[in-house]
Amino acid sequence: MGLARKKTRVVDVGGVKIGGDSPIVVQSMTSCDTRDVAATLRQIAELEEAGCEIVRVAVPDENAAAAIKDIRARINIPLIADIHFRADLAVMAMQNGADAIRINPGNIPVDGIRRIVTSAKLNRKSIRVGVNAGSLEKDIALRHGGPTAQALVESALRNIRLLEEMDFFDMKLSLKSSDVETTIEAYRSISALSDYPLHLGVTEAGTLLQSAIKSAIGIGALLHDGIGDTIRVSITGDPLQEIGVAFGILRSLKLRNVGPEIISCPTCGRCEIDLVSLTSQVEEKLRYMKTPLKIALMGCVVNGPGEAREADIGIAGGKESGMLFKKGEVVRKITEAEFVPVLLEEIRAMTGENI
Amino acid sequence: MGLARKKTRVVDVGGVKIGGDSPIVVQSMTSCDTRDVAATLRQIAELEEAGCEIVRVAVPDENAAAAIKDIRARINIPLIADIHFRADLAVMAMQNGADAIRINPGNIPVDGIRRIVTSAKLNRKSIRVGVNAGSLEKDIALRHGGPTAQALVESALRNIRLLEEMDFFDMKLSLKSSDVETTIEAYRSISALSDYPLHLGVTEAGTLLQSAIKSAIGIGALLHDGIGDTIRVSITGDPLQEIGVAFGILRSLKLRNVGPEIISCPTCGRCEIDLVSLTSQVEEKLRYMKTPLKIALMGCVVNGPGEAREADIGIAGGKESGMLFKKGEVVRKITEAEFVPVLLEEIRAMTGENI
Repeated sequence: MGLARKKTRVVDVGGVKIGGDSPIVVQSMTSCDTRDVAATLRQIAELEEAGCEIVRVAVPDENAAAAIKDIRARINIPLIADIHFRADLAVMAMQNGADAIRINPGNIPVDGIRRIVTSAKLNRKSIRVGVNAGSLEKDIALRHGGPTAQALVESALRNIRLLEEMDFFDMKLSLKSSDVETTIEAYRSISALSDYPLHLGVTEAGTLLQSAIKSAIGIGALLHDGIGDTIRVSITGDPLQEIGVAFGILRSLKLRNVGPEIISCPTCGRCEIDLVSLTSQVEEKLRYMKTPLKIALMGCVVNGPGEAREADIGIAGGKESGMLFKKGEVVRKITEAEFVPVLLEEIRAMTGENI
Repeated sequence: MGLARKKTRVVDVGGVKIGGDSPIVVQSMTSCDTRDVAATLRQIAELEEAGCEIVRVAVPDENAAAAIKDIRARINIPLIADIHFRADLAVMAMQNGADAIRINPGNIPVDGIRRIVTSAKLNRKSIRVGVNAGSLEKDIALRHGGPTAQALVESALRNIRLLEEMDFFDMKLSLKSSDVETTIEAYRSISALSDYPLHLGVTEAGTLLQSAIKSAIGIGALLHDGIGDTIRVSITGDPLQEIGVAFGILRSLKLRNVGPEIISCPTCGRCEIDLVSLTSQVEEKLRYMKTPLKIALMGCVVNGPGEAREADIGIAGGKESGMLFKKGEVVRKITEAEFVPVLLEEIRAMTGENI
């Protein structure tokens, strides 16, 4: 099918293209202290391994800005410095090799933003104008009676103008709220008013499951509209979790086809195999698989054969046994004990991956 | 703000109204053997306790249809019998007290559906026409080259006509696919063509996290359009998990305001408190809380005070300490050791709940 995507400008972040027809990029942010270079490198290595394509680090002081140099030299994906309050730290971070800067217009004064833009032009870096409902410019929040969608849009527009007046166009935008509706409305509005690429996210979204729900609704609704060029899922917890949820959202909308999609039923009184255990085992074994593959694990004959037929490989459960399907054809009947080993053997043969 | 909701007819399921201006109803389905009455009652009691408002059970044979009598007598929420293949089981289930029937038009012949409708009219029961991509009528699937959105819609329309020809109008509809896009497209189409209430769900959505992502995108996008009157999240695993995800989706869209919403940041190199542990502890303690309450747990001063100010209660972290906010006002500074006990004490006082 394919969703019609809003055409945006292309912005470069350390060699990774964002916007236009580029794939939607998955990014995350480290949660450790940036001044602890070893810990930061460990976290980034894990994120890279999981598929993270751009990483951001907090830069709260000079030592963190200095650490950028060591970190950037030893990672393989572009690095963004997250800047609040102090323009001088943005300038230091760029001089130390940060590929791009995220600024928060709500807490950096206009003259600070001008200094950052001057340095970004000189160093050929891009900037994200990162508006956040929790830290909006006071005059805008006051005028709108709080951090509404239109308040976020006004903040973005004001800062777009500021950067454009300095002939700076290498920017992307984010307009995040912890409220899903506000987030959707803000991005829809700005998308109609601007063609800068959009970084999507629902902010302060909570722990894994709650964030997966809020992020999937908010980011999902926007991507479904064709809006969004890069995404970041915010989770209170290990940032590694963010990558799995991000690719889960993109895979569900067929925007990035990476790794297995497991179709499995909720089971009911008809199910005569241990489907929950089967699904967990297969999911665990295929955790690091990169080849796209649609796998149907179905409990009974109601929807089992139908789903298995539409999948690359599948099992439709019967009485302590199941029919193995491949590319729409029944291969053979197998016993429940054979489910996991046979599936894994077939998947290895189909993908060539050493799972 | 509030979403504009598509106006549908109202259908009654054992006293619970679905459609029109009624709240969007959360339902689930047992996963145990329906013939095992004790196990089914245990599962339903847990679902009820978690907030499930309607429960469905599989009825694969006469013994399951007979068990409906004992089960119905001992639960407090309406019971739906899930019927495939055999019309006689639907008739038995209704006679035994099932409040409504779900039929799958893909696997019950037309004369069987007519028998079910005759019995439903006699017993004043409602029917869900439950179309599923995995078990579509063969002629329809063939004509559309597979279970496309338009194929699902054709199946629904054919069966609506069949029921209407018998002067039966107490029906709701579902058009589920394991493909999120197909699900969204099918429901959007049928919503434009019919005013029967819609039961939303993405089918065979996998284990907890994957299902949360797919269900939140699919169900969320539709609810955001104002489409949908009752929802079921399908999870391969304990059905209890389905209730949490369902209310999470509804809460995120402000459609059902139940229990706490925890706003918490992903933490970064700026965070000087153990926010992940704080959030997990608070989430765990408030698991059974029913009062709606917005709680902000924020790591630092960037968005902390802003989010805490918008919440009913919140903490904005500082250096091993934090500012306690209530209803937009700073209450006082507290130490990290005080975070959990002080929050719980305040929340107890605010809600009157014994958490």
